[in-house]
Order: sequence, then structure tokens, then C-alpha cells
Amino acid sequence: MSAPRERVVVPPVGGPVRELLRVTAPVHLGSIDPRSTPGLPDAAVTGEHRKGWAREQVELLGAGLGRQQEMLYATAKAAESAPDPAGSAPPRVLLVLQAVDSGGKDGTIKRVAGAMNPLGLHIRSFGPPTPEELRHDFLWRIRRALPPPGYVGVFNRSHYEDVLAARVGSLVPAAVWRARYDEINTFERELTDAGVTLIKVMLHISYAEQGARLLARLDDPRKHWKYNPSDVDARARWDDYQAAYADALSRCGPDSAPWFVVPADRKWYRDWAVAHLLRETFDTLDLGYPPAGFDLERERERLRPGGAEAEGTTEVNGR
Amino acid sequence: MSAPRERVVVPPVGGPVRELLRVTAPVHLGSIDPRSTPGLPDAAVTGEHRKGWAREQVELLGAGLGRQQEMLYATAKAAESAPDPAGSAPPRVLLVLQAVDSGGKDGTIKRVAGAMNPLGLHIRSFGPPTPEELRHDFLWRIRRALPPPGYVGVFNRSHYEDVLAARVGSLVPAAVWRARYDEINTFERELTDAGVTLIKVMLHISYAEQGARLLARLDDPRKHWKYNPSDVDARARWDDYQAAYADALSRCGPDSAPWFVVPADRKWYRDWAVAHLLRETFDTLDLGYPPAGFDLERERERLRPGGAEAEGTTEVNGR
Repeated sequence: MSAPRERVVVPPVGGPVRELLRVTAPVHLGSIDPRSTPGLPDAAVTGEHRKGWAREQVELLGAGLGRQQEMLYATAKAAESAPDPAGSAPPRVLLVLQAVDSGGKDGTIKRVAGAMNPLGLHIRSFGPPTPEELRHDFLWRIRRALPPPGYVGVFNRSHYEDVLAARVGSLVPAAVWRARYDEINTFERELTDAGVTLIKVMLHISYAEQGARLLARLDDPRKHWKYNPSDVDARARWDDYQAAYADALSRCGPDSAPWFVVPADRKWYRDWAVAHLLRETFDTLDLGYPPAGFDLERERERLRPGGAEAEGTTEVNGR
Repeated sequence: MSAPRERVVVPPVGGPVRELLRVTAPVHLGSIDPRSTPGLPDAAVTGEHRKGWAREQVELLGAGLGRQQEMLYATAKAAESAPDPAGSAPPRVLLVLQAVDSGGKDGTIKRVAGAMNPLGLHIRSFGPPTPEELRHDFLWRIRRALPPPGYVGVFNRSHYEDVLAARVGSLVPAAVWRARYDEINTFERELTDAGVTLIKVMLHISYAEQGARLLARLDDPRKHWKYNPSDVDARARWDDYQAAYADALSRCGPDSAPWFVVPADRKWYRDWAVAHLLRETFDTLDLGYPPAGFDLERERERLRPGGAEAEGTTEVNGR
């Protein structure tokens, strides 16, 4: 293992995180330890430094993700002005984050998306449906929140709440939520056909960890606003939620729209794993910069009538 | 001046940046040096280290801004569940960024917004109006893009294009764009009445710097996608744009919605100044965390039936 202090991205051990954390039917959440750290290069760092090391790795990964975001955007922009005659759709990426209350969705976005370029991000949060949203089918608000081509979308909760909270809370008849697994699969196939690369992530925390986090919110007046007594009601239904998650992950996880379960009791591991998932997914897109759509030499001439303008600055590019 | 290597935010010299960069009618852009660095603590750092020092300061300012974003969000959320009987609107912030092509809007967002929490950001870019947008009045698409209460909006271009590009390019009759100054003032007064704190920033670069930046885009294949030959057409109308900017800043800059001109030939100064503008503006909002809207002891009891759950974890909060 290369020296982690060099400030380079150290690859995961044992294979890509995309393989280590991928789940397929039948999914058994009970067999995944929320405190485990699959892929983390143990040999690179000692225990007490792992947290700081992982945080630094996320920052480094973020810089690389920023470049990939730029290529994604440039590719989509070029496709817009010159559509592919073969009809292939301009690319976009959608990270779907699901977790129980206090599972770390906000923290993941803050750390991982926060290390990326905000200009290329399209972050949307889904709460309980509004009266207007309830007048439409459950995918209506989801479709309106999709990232445009060239963007990285992040869903803070998603259409999966409609087979999780809707099921556990009996918000709709069983026949309704049962039909939604197929509806979700059809919807997501439509998305991938439209050029959307889906990364679906469940942040997996333990019952004990949730209790500790909720108590920590009570202990810190700066976190009281985050505390909602109804979270404890949902906590009382823990096993029902875990079963609903297992079903959703088992029934809606084709290779084209896979689910990843990220052990998330350790926040620093969670962020490290999600950042690698994004990086590895970007790598599969094989992005590059599109060629110039104009005459380079002619533009140089236009900008340099005698070279007078450019010579005015001694320091190029504001440095 | 305290030691800058301590990694603390060093305040600007000569007063708040909000005062140093504020412009009032009549605005004379020609008298503002795009290479100047008002407020930068020269005594703190030598010339060659200023860039790295400023970058570090932006990171530090970003962490503080993240906390202020959180208070903004928490305040708005509390106001939502318990509206102020006096009718005061929940707060939001809107940073409006304007500049000529290659003036650094994208870079500012990447660096300054990138140092903040992406969850609390609402970034919107405005290009040439679409056919649908042209069927409505010029403020229609702006209203749809406003940040919700609790968010920090960032406008990458804005309604000011309708008195800049629209005027210089003669996209509408003169009588139409002339009437827009009043319309903008009325609109922005409406916004401030609705709890929106506006920070309007013109990134001010020199003609020579623009030429150097456009040439740099031609010289780097990774930047070709950013280059648009029409930018050179606009560059040929430089003086007209500067005059249009001066008018817009002079006519639409009441104390409730002030304009700031940020010298922007030096990117690191630009980012430093915008970060301080945000911080100083947040300070005027006098934010705090709202009190708990529930019974603290009762919730502790609910979470700790015998204390069994919390004792399950040895390391609290995922550390």
C-alpha cells in the first residue's frame, strides 16, 4: 500500500467499492455489519488516524470528481448543440440516498457533494408529500426533480419512500405499494434509457447507533431543530422498516440500476465509500472533453488584432 | 495583524468589505482598478503567499458560513411550523453574480459556494431566454428561481441581463429596457419585504484580462467547450457593456439591495472578497438556533427505556 500521507487517492482493497457494497436479491440486511469498513485500506493507516485519513481522501476524491463533473457537463453541452445521429442520450448521473432517520443523508451530502463543484450539482430533498403532490401519482414529483443532462443529481430520500414509509405507515393500501415495485423498475429503466446513470445507496446504521444519534441531538441545543419526536415513533417500527428496505432492495436492483448498502455507523467510512462509488461510476462513463466546435486559429486571430490586447497583462489568468 | 498561519479568519483592514466595495450612484467603473485588493490585510502576508493565504481564508470562511447557513435553515424551519404573529418573513439570502464573459462567475461559485454546505444552496444559472421564457415578462423566470426560505440562493447572471445584454444587443426597444430599472427596483423591494436579503455583486475585470482569459481557453483543449465565438462579438462592444453596467448599478442600488463591485482580475482576491461579503451579510441577520419545540426530558425518556439502547454503542455519534 502506498503512503497515504502523499495526498493521493489510495484505491480500495479487495476490489472496487461498487463490487464490495453491491447487494442483489435476496438482500439480508442483518448480515451486513453497520460498523464494518469494506475496502478500506487498513494497511495504510493505523486505527486512530483512519478518520482523518478518510476525510482527506474524500477531499482528494472530490477534486477528481469535480473534473469528471466538468467533462459530464461539457459532453452534455456539446450533445445539445450537435445531437448524436445514433440517438444516444447525453449523460447525467443520479445518486439516490436512502436511510432511516439520522442515518446520515445530510452529512453525506455535506461531505461528499460538498467536496464536488456546486455548479454541476442538482440536489433535491423529498419530505412527506404535499397536498398538491398527493393529487398526482407518486412518481410525479420525482420526474420534476430529475437532474438535467450534464448534471449530477442527488436525491435526499426518493421514490423509495413510497414503498418504505408508505408501507410501514400504512399510508396506502397494500395492493398499492405492492404494485409500485414494478412501477419503479419501469420508471428507472426509462431513466437509464434517457442517459441517466443511477447509483442507489442505502446508508445502513444500527439500532443502537440511531439511538445514540437521536440522544446526541437532544444533548446539543444547536441540534434541537433537527429533532422530531415522530422519529422516535418510526424507530419503534425498526424491524418493519428493515423488512421494507430488504424488499425494496431485493425487488428493485437490476444491473442497470443497482443498490449499494454502505455500512454507515462510522461517518468517515460512509463518506469515503460513497465518494468512491461516485468515482468508480464516473469511470464507467468513459468521459472526455468534446472537440472544439469552431476554427481555433481564426478565433486566435480575432482575439489578437496585432496581439495588442493579450500583451496588456503580465500575469495570465489572474494569477 | 495576527499570524495568518494560525488558520483563523483574519478580518479585512480598513473596515468591512461591505463598506469598501459598496458603490452608489453615480457609479464610475473606470475609477475602480480591477487589479486592486481593497481590504486585503497586506501586513499579514508577503506578495507571493497571498494567493495561497487567500484560498485558505476562503476555506475557513466557508466553514463559518456553513454554520450560518444551518442557523438560517433552522430559523426558517421553525418559522414554518410556528409563523411569527407579527408577520415577519422567514429569512433567505440571495447572492446575485454579474460579470462580462469570462469574468469569473463560475469560478466564484466553485470556490465560495463550494466552501459552503451544498444542502443549503440554491444555485440557478440564466442563459439567453428560451422561447417559453420570452412569452412571459422578463421577471417570470427569475421569480421561479428564487430560493425558498432558509436557503442561500446564488444567481449566475440574473434579471440584470435584461438591462445589459438586452440593451447592448438591442434585443428590445429602448423604451422597454429603460422601463425595467423601475420594474427591477419594485421587484427587489418586494423581495426584501418577503425576507430576502440581497447581495448584488459585479465581478469587475479589465479588457486586457478578458482577452488573456479567452486566449487561455483557446490554448487548453480542456477549456474549448467553455469558449463561444459570440463572446468575442460581445467583447467588441466592451464600452457599451461598461456603460450599461454603470447605469444598472447607479439606478438599482438602494440601501436595501446594494451593489458591490469586486475587483476581479485576481481570482483569489475576488473569492476572498465575496466570501467576506457573505459573512458580513449573515452577521447583520443576527441568526441563532431556535428553541426546542418539544419536551426535552420526555424525549430523553422515550429514547432511553431503561437506558438500554444508548449503552449499546461505545463510540457515540459514529466516531
